[in-house]
Amino acid sequence: MITLSSDFGSPYPAAMKGVIADRTEARLVDVAHDLPRQNVQAGAFWLREVLPYFPPAVHLAVVDPGVGTDRGAVVVRAGEHAVVAPDNGLALPAARRLADDLDIFGLDYRGGAGDWLPDPASSTFHGRDVFAPAAARVHETGVDAVASVPGIEPTGEYVDLRLPEPEVGEDGAVGEALAVDGFGNVITNIPGEALEGHFEEHVKANGVWASTRRTYAAVDEGHRVITVGSHGNVELAVNQGRGDETFGVYAGGRVSLQWS
Amino acid sequence: MITLSSDFGSPYPAAMKGVIADRTEARLVDVAHDLPRQNVQAGAFWLREVLPYFPPAVHLAVVDPGVGTDRGAVVVRAGEHAVVAPDNGLALPAARRLADDLDIFGLDYRGGAGDWLPDPASSTFHGRDVFAPAAARVHETGVDAVASVPGIEPTGEYVDLRLPEPEVGEDGAVGEALAVDGFGNVITNIPGEALEGHFEEHVKANGVWASTRRTYAAVDEGHRVITVGSHGNVELAVNQGRGDETFGVYAGGRVSLQWS
Amino acid sequence: MITLSSDFGSPYPAAMKGVIADRTEARLVDVAHDLPRQNVQAGAFWLREVLPYFPPAVHLAVVDPGVGTDRGAVVVRAGEHAVVAPDNGLALPAARRLADDLDIFGLDYRGGAGDWLPDPASSTFHGRDVFAPAAARVHETGVDAVASVPGIEPTGEYVDLRLPEPEVGEDGAVGEALAVDGFGNVITNIPGEALEGHFEEHVKANGVWASTRRTYAAVDEGHRVITVGSHGNVELAVNQGRGDETFGVYAGGRVSLQWS
Repeated sequence: MITLSSDFGSPYPAAMKGVIADRTEARLVDVAHDLPRQNVQAGAFWLREVLPYFPPAVHLAVVDPGVGTDRGAVVVRAGEHAVVAPDNGLALPAARRLADDLDIFGLDYRGGAGDWLPDPASSTFHGRDVFAPAAARVHETGVDAVASVPGIEPTGEYVDLRLPEPEVGEDGAVGEALAVDGFGNVITNIPGEALEGHFEEHVKANGVWASTRRTYAAVDEGHRVITVGSHGNVELAVNQGRGDETFGVYAGGRVSLQWS
Repeated sequence: MITLSSDFGSPYPAAMKGVIADRTEARLVDVAHDLPRQNVQAGAFWLREVLPYFPPAVHLAVVDPGVGTDRGAVVVRAGEHAVVAPDNGLALPAARRLADDLDIFGLDYRGGAGDWLPDPASSTFHGRDVFAPAAARVHETGVDAVASVPGIEPTGEYVDLRLPEPEVGEDGAVGEALAVDGFGNVITNIPGEALEGHFEEHVKANGVWASTRRTYAAVDEGHRVITVGSHGNVELAVNQGRGDETFGVYAGGRVSLQWS
Repeated sequence: MITLSSDFGSPYPAAMKGVIADRTEARLVDVAHDLPRQNVQAGAFWLREVLPYFPPAVHLAVVDPGVGTDRGAVVVRAGEHAVVAPDNGLALPAARRLADDLDIFGLDYRGGAGDWLPDPASSTFHGRDVFAPAAARVHETGVDAVASVPGIEPTGEYVDLRLPEPEVGEDGAVGEALAVDGFGNVITNIPGEALEGHFEEHVKANGVWASTRRTYAAVDEGHRVITVGSHGNVELAVNQGRGDETFGVYAGGRVSLQWS
């Protein structure tokens, strides 16, 4: 199985699917192609939340503001999974959820891979010209044997990325909005545990009062609610409305909660 | 085959696909994940229009404004098909199109299902934590044998839903907008047969004159047209424009046609 | 393998997938269902850019402003590929990329096909009622044997479509915007070769100065850049912004470049 994730919108991902289908019979599963545009941290968050639900697979993931510069490409082995991605940290948070120990390989796509990956010198579409052939090749070779692929070698030099950590204290917590989902719910990096002992109360989020509840539907339509989302993190939401607009917080923004 | 329908947008459905792929080799087909948000009636309409075209399958369907409350979950058997959904009526109109006689089962997802479905006590994402595992389980067990799954038992208590019926008279018809499609076409519950004898005329829709034609393209670009859509119902449309905005009618709104 | 492309949005394509899955076990791959609405030339461009990456397949493609009129339907055989589409030229540019020599067949969907394709007399949804059954039938019969399908016969009468050609001269080039992608990049029909010798300069596009670079990221965020896209054509773009709005050029619009 090969999963595909990108910020390419449509119809570019279809070219990646064609390239892969031309090289392997592997089952293809689209994860998302509307990851936040060129936002590596938000993409890394979503991949971390979604990829661990899959059985062992090769995961093609591309959010790549540096395409066309000299940024590298990596294959991150996490147990029986592999993530093929640009070397910008995108793959790391998901890979660390998939397995405790990672093996990180560089992919030399500038002539070092030999026949299976011609140098895409002028390409602005590495999803199609580098990462799709690489994902197919890793799948066909097997995740265990990935180091046997020409151009793929263990590396200690790669761009790491760790999602920001919140500060949780007695009186509240300060964190960051990791992402906003399509419903407008603001997903923070503040762990849901921080809200324990403060449910069924009113809490200030960035200076605005809101009810703390275990579900969105526990407040009336249009009312602000602070809850814990399916990823286990604190969310700022509005029942059947948009939390991002109501709280005025967007991906990357600061979130401050005060419960006393 | 397992089909997936929801109002989850992206990338949440990918977690459901991962959960299912981790449990079964069944083929996965996305129906839609942009069903009208939290609108059970409109979702039920679309499922009714689309699911009957599929061969026998397990259909996972989630539009679920009551997630996190004590609403139940159902498995609706319709011939060789099964629909796994929240107990809010979403599945019923489609199931009645799929088969004349239905068998309705409750799914006890609060500890009654045993090992295969741990109690998702705090979940706000039942699509991933309840319905996806249940769809996989029903598929693996077989639709015929669904009652042998722990936690799935016949029930006479469930939330029913029937789409509203129009009134068709001599002088016109009064109905409801069931949905608006992505083109802006307003899909009513008024049967296409009501227009017979009134094509190639002008008819008033909510007080506005429009041409009745058998196709959108039979009026000039930008002109109002009342036609019969692919689902057999009367539609209010604008050729290469948006019927919803032009007629001022949205999902759930009243539609009154007068032909004399 | 059967690929699906349309401008139907959602959830209409699911009915096509159901119809096909009911007739064949063929693997289904969605290319795109958000092709520019009723814009045959832009759809033809995207199909030309994407379909050649696939292995031999039957390609179902529907952008069909003439649905419900007497426009015909075609099956275009291009080597081991076949494109099933309305007879409006949509299939031709892609087919010509897929193979040098084409065989073009008419599909008689008005009673001439016999049992396998009932006359969809009143249909406004030929994607579901004509093209999906036809794609399944062509797949099951085999692309080589397509002429053996009742209702499918060689034809010399079909609507052709060739994408417009640019004029490239000493001082610049004049062409047309073929499409705008989801990033807002304006894709012209001017070949990337026209820019050779003019990179790392400033060039006027429709009277506005912009930098010519080999990648988007080579200019600062928010700056105008003229580059060569993944399809090999000149693009008008803004790094992390929208080229269409900034240059004021939309699909079908004239693009004039002056480099001296």
